[in-house]
Amino acid sequence: MALIVHKYGGTSMGSTERIRNVAKRVAKWHRAGHQMVVVPSAMSGETNRLLGLAKELAPSKASPSYERELDMLASTGEQASSALLAIALQAEGLQSVSYAGWQVPIRTNNAYTKARIESIDDARVRADLDAGKVVIVTGFQGMDDAGNITTLGRGGSDTSAVAVAAAMKAQECLIYTDVDGVYTTDPRVVPEARRLKTVSFEEMLEMASLGSKVLQIRSVEFAGKYRVPLRVLSSFTPWDIDIREEAASGTLITFEEDEHMEQAIVSGIAFNRDEAKIALRGVPDKPGIAYQILGAVAQANVEVDMIIQNISKDGRTDFSFTVNRGDYAKTMDLLRASVIKGLGVEDVEGDTKICKVSIVGIGMRSHVGIASKMFRALSEEGINIQMISTSEIKTSVVIDEKYIELAVRALHKAFDLDQPTAA
Amino acid sequence: MALIVHKYGGTSMGSTERIRNVAKRVAKWHRAGHQMVVVPSAMSGETNRLLGLAKELAPSKASPSYERELDMLASTGEQASSALLAIALQAEGLQSVSYAGWQVPIRTNNAYTKARIESIDDARVRADLDAGKVVIVTGFQGMDDAGNITTLGRGGSDTSAVAVAAAMKAQECLIYTDVDGVYTTDPRVVPEARRLKTVSFEEMLEMASLGSKVLQIRSVEFAGKYRVPLRVLSSFTPWDIDIREEAASGTLITFEEDEHMEQAIVSGIAFNRDEAKIALRGVPDKPGIAYQILGAVAQANVEVDMIIQNISKDGRTDFSFTVNRGDYAKTMDLLRASVIKGLGVEDVEGDTKICKVSIVGIGMRSHVGIASKMFRALSEEGINIQMISTSEIKTSVVIDEKYIELAVRALHKAFDLDQPTAA
Repeated sequence: MALIVHKYGGTSMGSTERIRNVAKRVAKWHRAGHQMVVVPSAMSGETNRLLGLAKELAPSKASPSYERELDMLASTGEQASSALLAIALQAEGLQSVSYAGWQVPIRTNNAYTKARIESIDDARVRADLDAGKVVIVTGFQGMDDAGNITTLGRGGSDTSAVAVAAAMKAQECLIYTDVDGVYTTDPRVVPEARRLKTVSFEEMLEMASLGSKVLQIRSVEFAGKYRVPLRVLSSFTPWDIDIREEAASGTLITFEEDEHMEQAIVSGIAFNRDEAKIALRGVPDKPGIAYQILGAVAQANVEVDMIIQNISKDGRTDFSFTVNRGDYAKTMDLLRASVIKGLGVEDVEGDTKICKVSIVGIGMRSHVGIASKMFRALSEEGINIQMISTSEIKTSVVIDEKYIELAVRALHKAFDLDQPTAA
Repeated sequence: MALIVHKYGGTSMGSTERIRNVAKRVAKWHRAGHQMVVVPSAMSGETNRLLGLAKELAPSKASPSYERELDMLASTGEQASSALLAIALQAEGLQSVSYAGWQVPIRTNNAYTKARIESIDDARVRADLDAGKVVIVTGFQGMDDAGNITTLGRGGSDTSAVAVAAAMKAQECLIYTDVDGVYTTDPRVVPEARRLKTVSFEEMLEMASLGSKVLQIRSVEFAGKYRVPLRVLSSFTPWDIDIREEAASGTLITFEEDEHMEQAIVSGIAFNRDEAKIALRGVPDKPGIAYQILGAVAQANVEVDMIIQNISKDGRTDFSFTVNRGDYAKTMDLLRASVIKGLGVEDVEGDTKICKVSIVGIGMRSHVGIASKMFRALSEEGINIQMISTSEIKTSVVIDEKYIELAVRALHKAFDLDQPTAA
């Protein structure tokens, strides 16, 4: 008998019909002898509906007291779906109880709308499990020290599930979603993309941060910190498929670097269309310049992704970075208004028609020549590389947006990702 | 500076447009120097929507664990509207904070779906008021001793508002609703019906229990117990009407029997179409007979309203009572199946085509001949009285349903309720 955590996304909880299917699937696991904790998201559309009402009342008022109320509001969506799932499980003949975040309690800091979990008290949940109940822990939410409701930000139910699994030392945390696992790249771009049976935690972290939307990045970080075995799998398989088959499906995110994983040098190709490039030319090369540029950008709450500074020439250097495309205009205005003149920068230019393509693989650590293989594959397709950034397990390039599919397909093929692994 | 509690019903909170109007009205009261606590209901339709989803998942499973989940579910409607109202108040430039029942906390027993308030801790709310905030207390809900969410049953937000007003010793509790006060009778039946400027607590209690749906009866009981001045008024007046005019509008439910109130002997005519009559003829007149009949009925969870036992003749008596029309068939089946034979009752008959009409007035206490005036008015219209029941401040009759409007109009006129009061 193992303790298992299931997490179901908004689409999986999207109607009473689907909630009933979730209940039947959970009941199957319970009857197989497992202690079950389930973390559901709000029914799809519900969070947007609620926040839409708030927006009608107050178009844009970002203050802690406003965000406190947004959390009071948005947290009701998950609480309702948790209660509905408990009811559906009772209708299946199981004992079930749902808890809001504050009832567990799941304690967070007080950063409303993006709170971080600080601790989870598992006593209440464990007592219920020992009494034979299926316990529903409401996702996405917690309570701060002053007893206010907080939420964990978009996709926060993933993080709730992983945190509960960590606190309760669950054998595995299964994230049921509308895709059936993690792929070598987006199958809509490369039809030959294969589902990965396993992916390392670090690779998953890079893929999540590089635009693969399967899991919320903070949930992956959390899983890594507490070494929670995490599996991404589909909630659209029939609920009554064989449980052993189901338990082996999807993609397992692992923490042991076994031999099998060493064989795949590159595990996947990630890409992101949502970036814009900003380049400052002729920046005087003196200490503190990066801080002076990016400090102003950060203060305007703009997140910077890639940052590249070339070697200097004649006491001047070029400084480039990428931002979310939605922040591009704001960032350019800011630079023109205050930064450029003050620093004596010669010129600033930007481009929104770019994209970022990355190869990700834990095997890159111990294999040389991976980056050059990437650059060759792109050059063979006549694709010009505008920026390059590397880390231990990934190499990213910025290229013209129009080449994105071509680049992804070329790289997918170059690294044999369309071939079944030898193992 | 007074402490005032406002309560807004679901219709008043039915859209963001209406929530904005509520916020403007509350802001007006706050700016006039009052400390404001506001108790909103869920947006109209929301509670039904949520309970409809539960019903789809589990058509009818009445168990404590099921009802616990219903309360988890239904309580989200009020929490969401509370947060929305706080946001709307912030958009009006006020400081505002909303609290769920458990955050206040409002403590109740654990009778899920119909819990009763046991205590309210006012420390948190009072601290916020003293800091200049408008405090939103979520209606309809509380928390039991084990930390479970409970709800107070339909219309429970009225009770929440009155309980908060009592706990905080508010100067007045204003119940904003979609009618503009308590009337001498239903204006749809008698166009000449007048709005009462004041009505005594006891009269209001009778009217609420007799089918006048303006206030939930438990809220009136609560107001009586703690002597909370309660005013029913319309939320559809323009929000910016003069505050003194607004403060004097609607109907005030009072606890002092002043001279003014003595003048109106009968304050209103209540009626109820929703009853059915059951008569047992030839019941052996021996001790315990009433208990044996009604005990069985009560055990089947059927609420009995009027109960009448005539004097006996030849050792046998007639025993009649009324039940909710929806319980009629069930009650007749029950009586036929077990009670009739066991008691040696000669005959049982019933009638669903009846109605109850009542005159209510605190002045009846000190005036004789009121009942006979009622009976004469009915007889002049040729209306036969089937049952009579009296209390200190009301007299009710059961008549043929088809005469209901005629009877109400005749009584309204007979007691001069269409005339302005002398005061």
